[in-house]
Order: sequence, then structure tokens, then C-alpha cells
Amino acid sequence: MTDTVIFQYDELFEALNGLLSEHFEQAEAKALATIFTEAEFDGLVTHGLKRFPRFMDEISRGWINPRSKARILSDADAWMVIDGQQAPGPLNAMFSVDHAINKAKHSGIALVGLKNTNHWLRPGYYAKLAARANCVLICWTNTIPNMLAHSQSPTIGKPTLGNNPIVIGIPNGDKPIIFDTAMSQFSYGKIQQYAEDNKPLPVAGGYSDDGNPTNNAAKIFEQLSASAIGWWKGSGLSIMLDLLAAVLTGGQSVEEVSRHEGEQNISQVFIAINIEHLWGDQYFSRIANLIFQLETDEIHWPGQSLNRTRAKNDIEGVTIPLHIWQAVLESTPNQKHH
Amino acid sequence: MTDTVIFQYDELFEALNGLLSEHFEQAEAKALATIFTEAEFDGLVTHGLKRFPRFMDEISRGWINPRSKARILSDADAWMVIDGQQAPGPLNAMFSVDHAINKAKHSGIALVGLKNTNHWLRPGYYAKLAARANCVLICWTNTIPNMLAHSQSPTIGKPTLGNNPIVIGIPNGDKPIIFDTAMSQFSYGKIQQYAEDNKPLPVAGGYSDDGNPTNNAAKIFEQLSASAIGWWKGSGLSIMLDLLAAVLTGGQSVEEVSRHEGEQNISQVFIAINIEHLWGDQYFSRIANLIFQLETDEIHWPGQSLNRTRAKNDIEGVTIPLHIWQAVLESTPNQKHH
Repeated sequence: MTDTVIFQYDELFEALNGLLSEHFEQAEAKALATIFTEAEFDGLVTHGLKRFPRFMDEISRGWINPRSKARILSDADAWMVIDGQQAPGPLNAMFSVDHAINKAKHSGIALVGLKNTNHWLRPGYYAKLAARANCVLICWTNTIPNMLAHSQSPTIGKPTLGNNPIVIGIPNGDKPIIFDTAMSQFSYGKIQQYAEDNKPLPVAGGYSDDGNPTNNAAKIFEQLSASAIGWWKGSGLSIMLDLLAAVLTGGQSVEEVSRHEGEQNISQVFIAINIEHLWGDQYFSRIANLIFQLETDEIHWPGQSLNRTRAKNDIEGVTIPLHIWQAVLESTPNQKHH
Repeated sequence: MTDTVIFQYDELFEALNGLLSEHFEQAEAKALATIFTEAEFDGLVTHGLKRFPRFMDEISRGWINPRSKARILSDADAWMVIDGQQAPGPLNAMFSVDHAINKAKHSGIALVGLKNTNHWLRPGYYAKLAARANCVLICWTNTIPNMLAHSQSPTIGKPTLGNNPIVIGIPNGDKPIIFDTAMSQFSYGKIQQYAEDNKPLPVAGGYSDDGNPTNNAAKIFEQLSASAIGWWKGSGLSIMLDLLAAVLTGGQSVEEVSRHEGEQNISQVFIAINIEHLWGDQYFSRIANLIFQLETDEIHWPGQSLNRTRAKNDIEGVTIPLHIWQAVLESTPNQKHH
């Protein structure tokens, strides 16, 4: 049995806020504590406290600059370009989505391009912020190369594409519809887990030595041969999301990101669409009807289990394995922010 | 050997324009002749002349109304909602993308929602129109239900999701980068072809009786069990694209489309982004560099083979199987447009 520790929302938020306040200004510590706490309470544990030590480590390495702040490069009614200046990724993303929402409230739709940023942690949170403001959010990021391109003979061991996650969020009262997917069939975290359990992947998720699809998790993990959703189709989507991220922000592409250490200077796009602008209150009865129909077809709508998990966690609290919580407590960047 | 007929661009355009002029006003006949000719010359033969008889047949059935015209329902700086009023899908889509481009030229980004339309034929053409105007285009459509939702036990024989194609186009001088993909791993046309050739699909593309992935083309074709790209991931994407298409236009969802005969009253979204607005001429050297990098990694960029095919066809003309050309000549809607 694993030792665990149980937190209510405010307890976890305050504990993280305390830790982060040693390195960040008050507002920034609160924003970061919120995104970690929200990830845990929404059940996105792969993007919650597990990533806290890594976040702190990237500050130590100088990949994230806790003293830096995003800077607006250009500003118009329906679009904005922001230089993240290697400030913490979640703070840059929140800054960007706030501007996208405000502009969409005015123009109906708005695009914010963010360059020179780093990992945004759990992006569904930005879709939640937009949904609370009655905005659809479509946002994506590029990444380090971590996926093989589909081709006649994929170059095993040399990933060239990013898994470039995309998030689509649709307002729906207090139960937003949030879909969050990377272009890879499985993350390396998931592949590693199957490999360690000596299990095959449930569907093919990478290439074998001869370039054919395989669900051999150990082999894929060993030779870094993870594949895209839909093979050639996800490869194409990955390329398009990367090209758009690079050209709409003036920032670096996946290949350019690969030229320096770690996952720095990535590029992100945030498109907000104000649905009040379109339909007002009619919108919500429409969405309710559409979702009801999915449920009667016994399909899960994206975000359905997230909303259920959240409702449960809000009552019962979240249970964190003790070793993860200890790693959080012990993770202090060498380079402190004064 | 199949008998064939070879056309130069202007020959094919004029022949189709002549046929279409019997049923459509001059400008509309030209627009429709252009989209069929462009599909053939760009090598998208599945969405070219092969679909001409079906287009005419849907007019006969009353699913497409050749006398109807799109009507603007609401209009603002950066967005517009259009009722397609069952006018021909390609004309509705061209009307929508024209407005999206014009608005993006003013606002940087613009969204046009189109409801009550029908099949847009070959959507890459709309991305080409946008690219010529130096606009990125992101557009998608919903469809009739033609794909199984991924679940623990998919309901074989009862598709509930649309394959909801999405198109992303990026300007790149006279060689636009155009990516066009449905959310299904294979179209039923492709699956049928493999089934008739007694070949398995190159990767799993549907569900077997027990709900597991299979590449048995005959089985998938027989029991209508085609699957989404990336299984649960493409299922989620399909749902999100459908929900967005329905709520951003006020139009019908896949499930609502399924309640009446044929593929009528579908919903489409067009988002145009003016890249001149963002970077001016710097943009094109940036794109050239990014694409060059893709080529050196021996990855094909989306649209690369399309642009090569087009260059070849512009010189040599297109070769059409005679039986397809005869079907075009013989396809006359019963209900003529006077």
C-alpha cells in the first residue's frame, strides 16, 4: 500500500502558494498554485503535482526565468502578439488567454500568438477560464520533437515532429466541454508505464524496426518510435499546428526548438470566440440538447468524466501519494527569485 | 486498358461550364465548373468529376436547391452567420470564405458560420482562395453519421459520429500548404476499394464484431464499422468539431442531420487569418525556411505532392477515364433551373 496524504482544495492551494511565494511575487505564486491545484482536482494528475519538481528544476537550469514577464509586441482589435520572454509558461499562457478573452468580448473572435514561452502545464485550465467568460477557446502549442513522422521508412530514434497538443473548450455553464489531445497516440509517460508493466499498448502506438505499426510498448520506449494519431493524418496535423504556431507568433518551430537544450522558446496560439456575441442565452439550451443526445447514444462527451471527477474531489478532497508530495516539498530551485 | 480522354484546363472548364449553364446562372455555373476542374487538376480525383453525377442527382432529389441563394443572418466586423438555404454547397462555401477573407483583411482574424448547406465538394479549393489573399484558412464541416464512436463496446452497424473533415491552409506564394483530413482513418470509398481488391487495410481502420481494431476491409465495409484517427482521440475531435459547427452557426449537428434523408442542412465554420496583417513580407521567407527544413528531414509537407501534381497536370492535362466522363455527360437533373 502506498502512503498517501489527502488535501481539500484550499489546503492544497495554500500549501503550494506558500512554497511558491518563496520564489515568486504574490500574484504569480497564486496563479501557479491555482493551476497545479486545479489539475489535481480535475483529475489531470499527469499534469499536476507530478510536474512540480520538474517546473522547479527548469527554473534552476535557467530554462524558465521566474523574474521575467511577458511583453506585448503588437496589439490590434482582434489580435495580439506576445513575447513570453521565457517567463513561466503557465503565467504567459494565462496572460495570453486573458487578452484573447477580452478582445473576443469586443470583436467576437480574437487571436493571441505567444512566442518564447515554455510548458503551459495543464492547458484545459485555460479553456476553463475562457468558458467562464462564455468563450470558446481553441489553443495549441508546439513542443520538442518527440514523435516520428509517418513515412515509407521512419527514421527510428530520431523524432522530428512535436506532439503539439491542442485544446478545444466549449462553454456549458459550470460543466465546460473540454477536449485536450496531443498529436501522438500515447505520451512517453504512458508508453513507459505499459513497458514497465510488461503489457502491450491497447492499440498500435509506434513503429517497429522495420517501420511497421506496433503495440510493443518496451520497443517503442527503447527506440523513441512513438507515432501520431491516425499515422499519416496526425503527422500532417502536427506539421500544420507547428507551422501555424511558428508563423502566427513569429516564434520558433519544433525543429528550431530542438536546436537548444530542453523545451524552451516554444510557440503557442490562443483563439477565443465569444458565444454570447453569437447567440446569448439560446446557446446554453442548444448545447444542453446536443450533449443530452450524445449521452442517449452512450457516447461520453469530452470533459464528462472530468466534470464528474471534479464534483467528487470537491467533496472528498484529493489523495496524493506521499512520495509525490515529498518531492514537491523538496523541490526548490537553486536560483532564487528576490 | 481503360479508355480515357485527356483535357487541358480550359477545355475541361469550358465543357463543364457548358453543361452547368443549362441549370445555373452564368456566375454560378462558372464557379461550379472551376471547383470541379481545380479538383481534377490538383489530383483530388475522389472529389472531382466522380462526384459530378452525384451533385446533379442531389439536385434532382431536392436536397440541393439550384435556385436558392445564401442569406446573411448577422454581420459584425470579425464574424458573420450565413444561412445557406440549401443552395449548392460549393457556392455557399465560396460565399462564406469570401466574406471571411474580406473581414480578416480588416480585423486580422474573422469567423464565418454557415448553416443549412450541403457537401462542399473539395474543400482545399477554399484554402487556395484564402492563400491567394494571403490568409490562413481553418475550416471544417459536419456530415451525416458515418463513423463509430470509440467506446468499450462500439455499436456495430450504427455510426453516430461524422467524419467531419477539417482543412488548414497556409499561404506560401504559388505553392500553398494545404492539409485536408477527415476524422475517419479511411473513407468508405477507400475501404470499399481494398475490400474489392481482397486486400487488408494498411493499418487498422475499423472495428471487428467484438469491438477490437481490425484492418479487415471487407468486414468494415459490410458492417459500417469505420473508426476514427487515433481511436478515442479522433472520436473526441469529431464530437468537438460537430459541437462547434452546430453552436457557432446555429445549424444542425450530425445527429440532427441524420434525422432527414441524405446529407442536407449540414453546418460549416470558416476562420480566416490575415498573415500580411501579422508579418508582411517577412512571413514568406520564414515559411520558406520552415518548409526547407521539413524537406531536408525527408518529410513531405502537406500540399507538397498536390503542388507537384498540379504543375505536371498544367503541362500535360488530366486523363479522365471515359466511363467517368460519360457519366458526367449523362447526368442531368430532372428538375431544371429556369
